[in-house]
Amino acid sequence: MNDHPAQAPPTAPLTLQWCGGVDGALRLIDQTLLPGELRYVECTTAEDVWEAIHTLRVRGAPAIGVAAAYGVVLGTRLLAAADRTQFDQNLESVCKFLATSRPTAVNLFWALERMRQTAATWAGLASQQLCERLLQEARAIEAEDRAMCAAIGRHGADLLADRQCVLTHCNAGALATAGEGTALAVIFEAVRQGKRLRVFADETRPLLQGARLTAWELMQRAIPVTLICDAVAGWAMRQGMVDAVLTGADRIAANGDVANKIGTYAVAVLARRHGIPFYVAAPSSTFHLALPSGEAIPIEQRSADEVTRGFCRPIAPESVGVYNPAFDVTPAELIDAIVTERGVIRPVTAARIREVLTA
Amino acid sequence: MNDHPAQAPPTAPLTLQWCGGVDGALRLIDQTLLPGELRYVECTTAEDVWEAIHTLRVRGAPAIGVAAAYGVVLGTRLLAAADRTQFDQNLESVCKFLATSRPTAVNLFWALERMRQTAATWAGLASQQLCERLLQEARAIEAEDRAMCAAIGRHGADLLADRQCVLTHCNAGALATAGEGTALAVIFEAVRQGKRLRVFADETRPLLQGARLTAWELMQRAIPVTLICDAVAGWAMRQGMVDAVLTGADRIAANGDVANKIGTYAVAVLARRHGIPFYVAAPSSTFHLALPSGEAIPIEQRSADEVTRGFCRPIAPESVGVYNPAFDVTPAELIDAIVTERGVIRPVTAARIREVLTA
Repeated sequence: MNDHPAQAPPTAPLTLQWCGGVDGALRLIDQTLLPGELRYVECTTAEDVWEAIHTLRVRGAPAIGVAAAYGVVLGTRLLAAADRTQFDQNLESVCKFLATSRPTAVNLFWALERMRQTAATWAGLASQQLCERLLQEARAIEAEDRAMCAAIGRHGADLLADRQCVLTHCNAGALATAGEGTALAVIFEAVRQGKRLRVFADETRPLLQGARLTAWELMQRAIPVTLICDAVAGWAMRQGMVDAVLTGADRIAANGDVANKIGTYAVAVLARRHGIPFYVAAPSSTFHLALPSGEAIPIEQRSADEVTRGFCRPIAPESVGVYNPAFDVTPAELIDAIVTERGVIRPVTAARIREVLTA
Repeated sequence: MNDHPAQAPPTAPLTLQWCGGVDGALRLIDQTLLPGELRYVECTTAEDVWEAIHTLRVRGAPAIGVAAAYGVVLGTRLLAAADRTQFDQNLESVCKFLATSRPTAVNLFWALERMRQTAATWAGLASQQLCERLLQEARAIEAEDRAMCAAIGRHGADLLADRQCVLTHCNAGALATAGEGTALAVIFEAVRQGKRLRVFADETRPLLQGARLTAWELMQRAIPVTLICDAVAGWAMRQGMVDAVLTGADRIAANGDVANKIGTYAVAVLARRHGIPFYVAAPSSTFHLALPSGEAIPIEQRSADEVTRGFCRPIAPESVGVYNPAFDVTPAELIDAIVTERGVIRPVTAARIREVLTA
């Protein structure tokens, strides 16, 4: 475990950024190469964005939403000279296409819906002008995302006390958003307020977002971080090494059930067993109030190769059966609070969720 | 998930084997190369055995005990021409040296103690003859280990019913013993009795014994196995996919607290939460009755490299802090039964442990 060094002010490269005007491009950190290499990819077509989301070059529910919005710009600008009927038909195809890039994160669908609504609102506009409007809307989604992260940080920082050790799972940091992150924004803000925090980062198999991304972000900001294998979390809790758990979310049902990276559910059960508070940080766009509970949330099943071939040589017998869900659902009863940009939902009940989200 | 194919009778290569007489060698499967390559290493010195145990070429508490016993043969035969005083001094050095190869598995110390006792019992014997006796004793330990595995299988098979799905963590199979294993021996015997079982194998980070070894053993015997990342176990339980949990043990205290591969504790908590029975299978040599509880069991801390460099490129930032305990302790209250070669301990209490072990 690390000590508490003097903490440098947070700085980090931008996860994603639109460069230029309507004829511009979406520039993304290729997160599959971190922490070894900080390389950017330029997306100039909707297909590029679909591929970047699908292969997890860009990941994290809020960042996926922002990327998808720009993907709509890239996929529709080709028909800027066409009439609106054609333009709108193509926009619909582009949205449907981008929606297939990942199934669980609701922010993706939420962002695509906002782009559709923009076109509907500006029904009288020529295609060329609508292209500009769509870019404006995507920029607005990005700006709101940054503001959302900052607000989540402010609302959540009070949940953490000086000298606490916070356990997090997967990556809900700046790399998962256009801003400072969700769960990590809370930690960054608490550190800015002078709290000396330490973090346990679950490595988060199979794709190791915790080891590759969360540890990297925290070290860039000189916040003491200790990397653990996922199976160590329960043992660390039992030894009194963890004061709070804080994760992001990919989708939240009306009753507060949270879909998040596989393993979140187990961490929540373990936290409850040890009397450790379990917090979720997520923007309001993560809520899917049409779903009464987590049972209705579709869980993405990913390739067996992620599990059997994640290392440089095969690490399991050829053709072994694999069960590789990307997400799980944590029931609301195990969640002590959900931090949103509109305030803290506590206790996590359907009534309190509606109250905070519509405040 | 796999179906239930017709199941072939179990067969598998020997984990370890002594070849020749006193001038022979210990032949081991190099388990660090599985499942990609089935290669044997020959140990001809105590240093070879120490290295094989330390680097996990041979692992699993019972197999470590057998290997260490042969290590004593290899380390002492050099002084077969010396007088007994010199021979006994060297035997003590060899035992002390081998005891440093791994700290948690008590079978290691138990086997070394038996070798010491053999020398003490035959105090009047010349060194040359004692060498033969020590080899006999090591062979006896190996033979008892095989018989122990078979007995554990017989006692434990009743705990599993037809068509059940059993979750296991790490590898407590043939590769962990000289025989058929401990936890897996129970499964192999139940399958021989005609029960159609399926197995979830936790991959068991950082060293992936579940992915590399358990999945391999089960596939060799045509028993349906599904590999999961460790963080998936709780979610699989919540979805009703798991009927029982069965693991091995590295050391068991007088009150039934079980030290086993890191992550076992979390699986036990999750099993209890879901009303799923949690069983441990281990020989009586795994019990350390001088320890009142698991709190006194030393936990081996292993290298950070296992976590950060297990993949072909670094998967975490350079010099990140890592907490990498090899084992954890599962309290007796979470364990529904311990299967030993002498019978099933149930409930897991100090009184019942003494009763079964001294029966």
